[in-house]
Amino acid sequence: MEDITVDRERLWSSVQELGAIGETDEGAMMRVTGSPADAAARDTVVSWFEDAGMNVTVDAVGNIKARLPGTTDGAPVMTGSHIDTVPNGGKFDGVVGVLAPLEVIRAWNDAGFEPERPLEIVVFTEEEGTRFGVGLLGSLVATGELPLEDALELSDGDETVRECLSSIGYNGTGTIDLERAASFLEIHVEQGPILDESGTDVGIVEAIAGITHHRVVFEGTADHAGNTPMDMRRDAYLGAAQFSLDLEAIATAAGEHSVGTVGKSTVSPNGTNVVPGRVELGVDIRDTDGDRLARMVRDAKAAATEAADTRGLEVQWETLLEVEPTDLSPEIQSRLEQAAESTGGTYRRMLSGAGHDAMNMADAVPTGMLFVPSEGGLSHTPEEFTSPRDLHRGTEVLEAAIRDLVGDPRAAPARLDGERADSVD
Amino acid sequence: MEDITVDRERLWSSVQELGAIGETDEGAMMRVTGSPADAAARDTVVSWFEDAGMNVTVDAVGNIKARLPGTTDGAPVMTGSHIDTVPNGGKFDGVVGVLAPLEVIRAWNDAGFEPERPLEIVVFTEEEGTRFGVGLLGSLVATGELPLEDALELSDGDETVRECLSSIGYNGTGTIDLERAASFLEIHVEQGPILDESGTDVGIVEAIAGITHHRVVFEGTADHAGNTPMDMRRDAYLGAAQFSLDLEAIATAAGEHSVGTVGKSTVSPNGTNVVPGRVELGVDIRDTDGDRLARMVRDAKAAATEAADTRGLEVQWETLLEVEPTDLSPEIQSRLEQAAESTGGTYRRMLSGAGHDAMNMADAVPTGMLFVPSEGGLSHTPEEFTSPRDLHRGTEVLEAAIRDLVGDPRAAPARLDGERADSVD
Repeated sequence: MEDITVDRERLWSSVQELGAIGETDEGAMMRVTGSPADAAARDTVVSWFEDAGMNVTVDAVGNIKARLPGTTDGAPVMTGSHIDTVPNGGKFDGVVGVLAPLEVIRAWNDAGFEPERPLEIVVFTEEEGTRFGVGLLGSLVATGELPLEDALELSDGDETVRECLSSIGYNGTGTIDLERAASFLEIHVEQGPILDESGTDVGIVEAIAGITHHRVVFEGTADHAGNTPMDMRRDAYLGAAQFSLDLEAIATAAGEHSVGTVGKSTVSPNGTNVVPGRVELGVDIRDTDGDRLARMVRDAKAAATEAADTRGLEVQWETLLEVEPTDLSPEIQSRLEQAAESTGGTYRRMLSGAGHDAMNMADAVPTGMLFVPSEGGLSHTPEEFTSPRDLHRGTEVLEAAIRDLVGDPRAAPARLDGERADSVD
Repeated sequence: MEDITVDRERLWSSVQELGAIGETDEGAMMRVTGSPADAAARDTVVSWFEDAGMNVTVDAVGNIKARLPGTTDGAPVMTGSHIDTVPNGGKFDGVVGVLAPLEVIRAWNDAGFEPERPLEIVVFTEEEGTRFGVGLLGSLVATGELPLEDALELSDGDETVRECLSSIGYNGTGTIDLERAASFLEIHVEQGPILDESGTDVGIVEAIAGITHHRVVFEGTADHAGNTPMDMRRDAYLGAAQFSLDLEAIATAAGEHSVGTVGKSTVSPNGTNVVPGRVELGVDIRDTDGDRLARMVRDAKAAATEAADTRGLEVQWETLLEVEPTDLSPEIQSRLEQAAESTGGTYRRMLSGAGHDAMNMADAVPTGMLFVPSEGGLSHTPEEFTSPRDLHRGTEVLEAAIRDLVGDPRAAPARLDGERADSVD
């Protein structure tokens, strides 16, 4: 067997080729689930999987699974991510987690390397939740957290998931068998600034933050900005402003893995010369620790109530989304460290503030995540960028880690089944 | 001569009748300059003026002037306001200043009272500035502050003022002669809560606040709300929030006649899970004292810079509007006090935080303003309301004041010409 070489140029070309499908004139990605661009991108990766000697199947929710047989019929190692994008998104989010493993197999094929266990690459449907409102849709169905029939009946008002998948020819049968899977490993862009700013090659994810979304509405009175004395106002905007600064203080004090954001604000009536009568905020609070997250949300609610009371405003707090934090497999974290060390790459353990399919998979299978740098921390924008060098480095670490997991004859075979049984509980 | 009696029912009916012209199904007023509703409302008040024995002329910018002759050819007393509305406005703003004087003349006619000086009621064009972007348009032209030709060439992109006035048949000739006017008196709804909350019948306006409008833009970086640690953010929304609270403190400390408002806020990209990268604010700062106003604006700019610097943001400050404060005639204020006392009405001296045609007229003629209560301080909304009682009380005070100014034979004739000469300077 020859040395295994991850081909930087081939990997970069594939990312660019897929990034041309659904690209707008402004260089942004528009590859929403079920769109012609989504169909074309699916067809492209399927043909690449088949050219790499993989056996491709599609399940009932449109998840694509490409399987490379192993020399044994051992429990398969799984990897993968998604190729759908947010509107006006970038070329790397999700795509890296599909094409980096593909490059691993291409490199193995070049070197004549055959894995002991089978390796499966999964392309999950509707990870972004852009079209049907439920993110991580494909992995929710794969892990049984969302019944298949419920998923297929989701509608965007125009079409159901079932109709949409049928129209692009990605309505397969059955669901992905996770009972037999040994492990799941997802490589993804960080979507944050830590690796880029610290000049680190890869991040080894210890936990995925719990995510909560809230709609917070402050109601006061819309008054004439010229004729209403300062002490006779019920200014909803100022209540919202006070709450937002309080939330920042709460998140900062809670710890380095705690974040609180007012990302969205809609002011009514929104005229320069009118005291705002109503402000609706979209609030995002995350933490990798469930108890700390609950405390932050409780403190934020109290801060909103106090900001409202001080100004004679009404406040309504509606929680729209609550996802628990997820710890990833310590065993796989260790193996990723060894893989990084074996390739000479620099690494750091870190947390994921964003949700990923790996979050669902971790409930069913020992799961790990590997981050590669996002330039400037940017994501979900056409400016999203991971350099060819960083992509190559990250894929080298991925290759070493997967080779370890599939049971390189030169290393001890991966036996994670015991850990999986614990994780399922 | 009989006693002069302001007819509460007749006045209220006229306000309601005019308020039915351009009223939407939801009870809001849509009477934008040049609209069919504006034309119909103009025709209606013109017929009412003529029925009351007045001679109606229209000037080149569409200002309507109705003249009641005096028993002498003395300098005329002028009053008036406007009948155009903001979109989804109310039935009282402007209209009261046209129909209350009409009721005065109807009451005089009933009683057989003839004024010594002529009395002129003016209906100014495009006071709200809704359609052509320049508020107080008619009075700006009347006082020569805006050249007639410039006014006529203003366009909303669809039509010029000239074309619009021609299409509704209100393109007259010449401009209103202010050289010969003795005084101007405008009655208007307060558009603030002070009279309503204090249970006062009328407000005697001492000064109209200077008005400044600013566009303040905070620019930071749009980042992922989950993956960007609190201490690595450049959150434009929080910079704007800090500035807004600082502006409130600056205005509150400046004095009881100082106001500062962030009325408008546009956040980009405005997604719950994205740290805001850009916030554009519409800021309104007013004061009745020019020096204090300038200090407030200076302090607000400094606060914006500091809020931006603290968070590593960029800030741009663009001043869009700057109108100096206007002091109204002390002589007319005294006469309004006497008029209120003569009718048994309660009154308080106050300031106008809103701009009015009287603001322009004060540069050319000794000018006064009388406020009637706005229920709950509401204005520029269908909920705008002044009760029949309050309207009646205010019109009684107006009647007494105008009768004084036009030279009731039972009182000393008004001789304000000397004061006018000073005011012109």
